[in-house]
Amino acid sequence: MFFELIRSDSQSKARAGVLNTSHGKVETPIFMPVGTQGTVKTVSPHELDGLGAQILLANTYHLFLRPGDRLIEEAGGLHRFMGWSLPILTDSGGFQVFSLAGLRKITDEGVRFQSHLDGSRHTFTPETVIDVQARIGSDILMVLDECTAYPCTEREAVKSSDRTLRWAERSLRRFTDIRAGFTAQRFLFGIAQGGTFEAVRRLSIERLVAMDFPGYAIGGLAVGEPKSLMMETVDLCTGLLPAGMPRYLMGVGKPEDIVQAIALGVDMFDCVIPTRNGRNGTVYTRGGRLVIKSKAFERDFQPIETSCGCYTCLHFSRAYLRHLIHSSETLGLRLATIHNLFFYLNLVKEARQAVLESRFSEWKNAFFSVYYTEGQNPHSNER
Amino acid sequence: MFFELIRSDSQSKARAGVLNTSHGKVETPIFMPVGTQGTVKTVSPHELDGLGAQILLANTYHLFLRPGDRLIEEAGGLHRFMGWSLPILTDSGGFQVFSLAGLRKITDEGVRFQSHLDGSRHTFTPETVIDVQARIGSDILMVLDECTAYPCTEREAVKSSDRTLRWAERSLRRFTDIRAGFTAQRFLFGIAQGGTFEAVRRLSIERLVAMDFPGYAIGGLAVGEPKSLMMETVDLCTGLLPAGMPRYLMGVGKPEDIVQAIALGVDMFDCVIPTRNGRNGTVYTRGGRLVIKSKAFERDFQPIETSCGCYTCLHFSRAYLRHLIHSSETLGLRLATIHNLFFYLNLVKEARQAVLESRFSEWKNAFFSVYYTEGQNPHSNER
Repeated sequence: MFFELIRSDSQSKARAGVLNTSHGKVETPIFMPVGTQGTVKTVSPHELDGLGAQILLANTYHLFLRPGDRLIEEAGGLHRFMGWSLPILTDSGGFQVFSLAGLRKITDEGVRFQSHLDGSRHTFTPETVIDVQARIGSDILMVLDECTAYPCTEREAVKSSDRTLRWAERSLRRFTDIRAGFTAQRFLFGIAQGGTFEAVRRLSIERLVAMDFPGYAIGGLAVGEPKSLMMETVDLCTGLLPAGMPRYLMGVGKPEDIVQAIALGVDMFDCVIPTRNGRNGTVYTRGGRLVIKSKAFERDFQPIETSCGCYTCLHFSRAYLRHLIHSSETLGLRLATIHNLFFYLNLVKEARQAVLESRFSEWKNAFFSVYYTEGQNPHSNER
Repeated sequence: MFFELIRSDSQSKARAGVLNTSHGKVETPIFMPVGTQGTVKTVSPHELDGLGAQILLANTYHLFLRPGDRLIEEAGGLHRFMGWSLPILTDSGGFQVFSLAGLRKITDEGVRFQSHLDGSRHTFTPETVIDVQARIGSDILMVLDECTAYPCTEREAVKSSDRTLRWAERSLRRFTDIRAGFTAQRFLFGIAQGGTFEAVRRLSIERLVAMDFPGYAIGGLAVGEPKSLMMETVDLCTGLLPAGMPRYLMGVGKPEDIVQAIALGVDMFDCVIPTRNGRNGTVYTRGGRLVIKSKAFERDFQPIETSCGCYTCLHFSRAYLRHLIHSSETLGLRLATIHNLFFYLNLVKEARQAVLESRFSEWKNAFFSVYYTEGQNPHSNER
């Protein structure tokens, strides 16, 4: 069985489960570090393994353009190419392509676009992105979807949801047609669109579930809508999705968003925040964010977080990290990334353990009692 | 005893020895990776340890400006600040300051200069650079010297050599005055200048040796002179320096230069080539250099060097490394740096073992029989 639901929390919708893939098990809820170009920026696959990462996300759009899915196939697949033996999920490339704005044109057939690297012209269709992901060798593939913008009218939400559903059918057909040639088990996830419109989300999920995917993603969120509206929509979607299938909230988010979405029944997350913010010198602690480049840390010889067991905190001080980042030394970006990924991976691991031990709500309350989110006063950590 | 000479080769001037410091032993001949700003660019101290690095070089000029020697002292010294427990050698800062051209003024007292970072004004004297290096906590300190340019007149060479000798006396006096306060054993090396003029080198070394330093550096080479002239000068210097003291050839060099200089009796080396060239996508093999960014490696799924035991070669292909470097991924810079440092450290280790086993000349001949230097045709490795 691909997904085993091990325990559901009695006071919230939080769940603990396991995904079984050809490249190993993934304990959910899980956070997937983002490895855009076949590497999680600044860290090695062995460091990721040591951090407890169980699955990575890679971007089909980027890998398709460089080094190319056929080259990756020749290399023996992305796992072998990048030296990562655990599961890999690839997105469909749609989100990146839609973000190209002037460089792309969407039709029912698919999306024509120009490479951001060299202007070369390409087309993604629901069928070709399945082929590309299969060549890359992903364990979990995503259907091509059209991400609904925010704000948008209900009519626009219906339109992109309908197109996404038609594309989902075509994706599934292609996947079924070529699956006999797969060298490993692969799983194709459907994606629910519909913006923040309840009726559109309902219909989208109903029709998607009828196609019987082994997992479902909630797309079209974290695109600018208010946080409360995002969480309401997540709540709606997880209430409609089948309990026996994993749910993946795409592109979310900040630590507090992940904790909240776990409480609403989400199992899988990916986001560039821990890696990208790490490279910008922002690190996460149980007390909230620290902008480590700040002058306040110049002579602060304690670790980012004293209770943290990551490589960075065990060996280096805030002052050293600040020095590295100020000096444009890439080791600084790496040490910040390591800490942030450890923080995120540890957060979802703790959430899972709390679900298993029937104390998720206490754990969640304890998290929010000390975690200062952006906009609040800085925690005393920031001095 | 600081330096133990264990064995001298009978067919060349190559030697095997050991440096004993408060932070451990260093087996010579040794290559010292350059950690300019308190980090060897792209790699962690634990990776350096795993590569077999036994001693690092750090740059006094850079650390003095940022984060500052007093901050490093507060942090408990550079070893603790950067998480490196083995020996550290610091240069005097002189070479960097002299390279500032328009931003510095040299007098007998010392050198006044403006920071390349913010234009702030500072002065280095023979005394202050000893104080700065002591605060940094170096195991091996270097005297402030004036590097002779190439080409220069004999008169200019005499002038800079004389100044260097006067500064060496002042450095030694300061070192002696403050050594009672040292928290660990420290050793101050003298530096011989004199350009490529035999008479000036002879006098410089004679007077320097009379001051009785525990080690001697050969400075003022690898500054543009022909390779043959450099090696003749090295040969001259090692013939004049006392056998019982370590000899350090500053800023050298390419793999072939190091092998040659070991044959001429040099014990210690530092150079940015393996790290800087690694970051530019040039890697070293027993067959010579490979420019890994080249199109030729696009679909080359073998490691940089099949016989190499480094982390990079054990896990990744040339094609992957090329992809990372083309995609501006810092992991690519790190993997190239790791390979190159492993290559350099392994090279001097092999040279040492060959001296110990009385087969240095055979080893050296074997090295040159397959190593293609720049200007020669590329090795078949480059396809």
